[in-house]
Amino acid sequence: MIGHNSTAGSLAADRLKAFVDRIERLEEEKRGLQEDIKDLFTEAKGVGFDSKIIRICLRLRKMDKADRQEKEAKLKLYKTAMGMTD
Amino acid sequence: MIGHNSTAGSLAADRLKAFVDRIERLEEEKRGLQEDIKDLFTEAKGVGFDSKIIRICLRLRKMDKADRQEKEAKLKLYKTAMGMTD
Amino acid sequence: MIGHNSTAGSLAADRLKAFVDRIERLEEEKRGLQEDIKDLFTEAKGVGFDSKIIRICLRLRKMDKADRQEKEAKLKLYKTAMGMTD
Amino acid sequence: MIGHNSTAGSLAADRLKAFVDRIERLEEEKRGLQEDIKDLFTEAKGVGFDSKIIRICLRLRKMDKADRQEKEAKLKLYKTAMGMTD
Repeated sequence: MIGHNSTAGSLAADRLKAFVDRIERLEEEKRGLQEDIKDLFTEAKGVGFDSKIIRICLRLRKMDKADRQEKEAKLKLYKTAMGMTD
Repeated sequence: MIGHNSTAGSLAADRLKAFVDRIERLEEEKRGLQEDIKDLFTEAKGVGFDSKIIRICLRLRKMDKADRQEKEAKLKLYKTAMGMTD
Repeated sequence: MIGHNSTAGSLAADRLKAFVDRIERLEEEKRGLQEDIKDLFTEAKGVGFDSKIIRICLRLRKMDKADRQEKEAKLKLYKTAMGMTD
Repeated sequence: MIGHNSTAGSLAADRLKAFVDRIERLEEEKRGLQEDIKDLFTEAKGVGFDSKIIRICLRLRKMDKADRQEKEAKLKLYKTAMGMTD
């Protein structure tokens, strides 16, 4: 294992470095994609879209339609019970 | 400052301990309140309420009414544009 | 349940309001404690302490001592393997 | 803008859909990378490495070396002041 000043020790150290390097490369790629997503939201905002509302739409689109409808119906009931209807 | 083996050093160490103790006591209290809130949600769930919907109501109640109405109207428009109307 | 225009319906609505009010009061108290904690960190920073380091100390103090020592020893090994020793 | 039943309205709707589609594709790619990173940690764990320690190393490697050394020296001082030396 790591730490032993033996071939096994240095082998383990090389393996650790390999894992760290591969993870760092993937995280670098992920940051790049995150930047691209951020740029798209900025672009959408620049032509007048509301990025918060787009995020809600993205979240709703991930939901199963029946679940979403049930949730929206329930929310309407709770809002009425709480006197939050407009 | 801390680390100097002088009266100033030990004074600073005592001061640090005092801050850490006071922060830990407040964080302890905060955890207690968090437990009470969790218990309330469990109680509400136990009598049939949906805790996720309650959380949304809590969030909406924190919003200014006009902002909330504007956001809900805009979301309706975006959902229609995205063919998400039911 | 909520929504039925019957006594049961309005009873449920009252119950929901009661839960929401109690949760909001506890969350209000929690925010107050959070402000007090924030003030303490600001006070500590004002007399020269490093709030990031204080947070690490708070986290370490929550750990079991043996676990903390094992973790610190392992980190030292991994840092050596990664050539991060100074 | 969206909502007006005019060409402008439907143009805006198409534009919104295009933004949503592009964002969803990038988020899909990002989730794929996240899975790959997760698999790597699982693989590293499988051959005996501690993923929490690897995460700390990844975080430390992102820091400027001088900053990291200063932080570690300060932490040592604070731990001594708090009687957390072992």
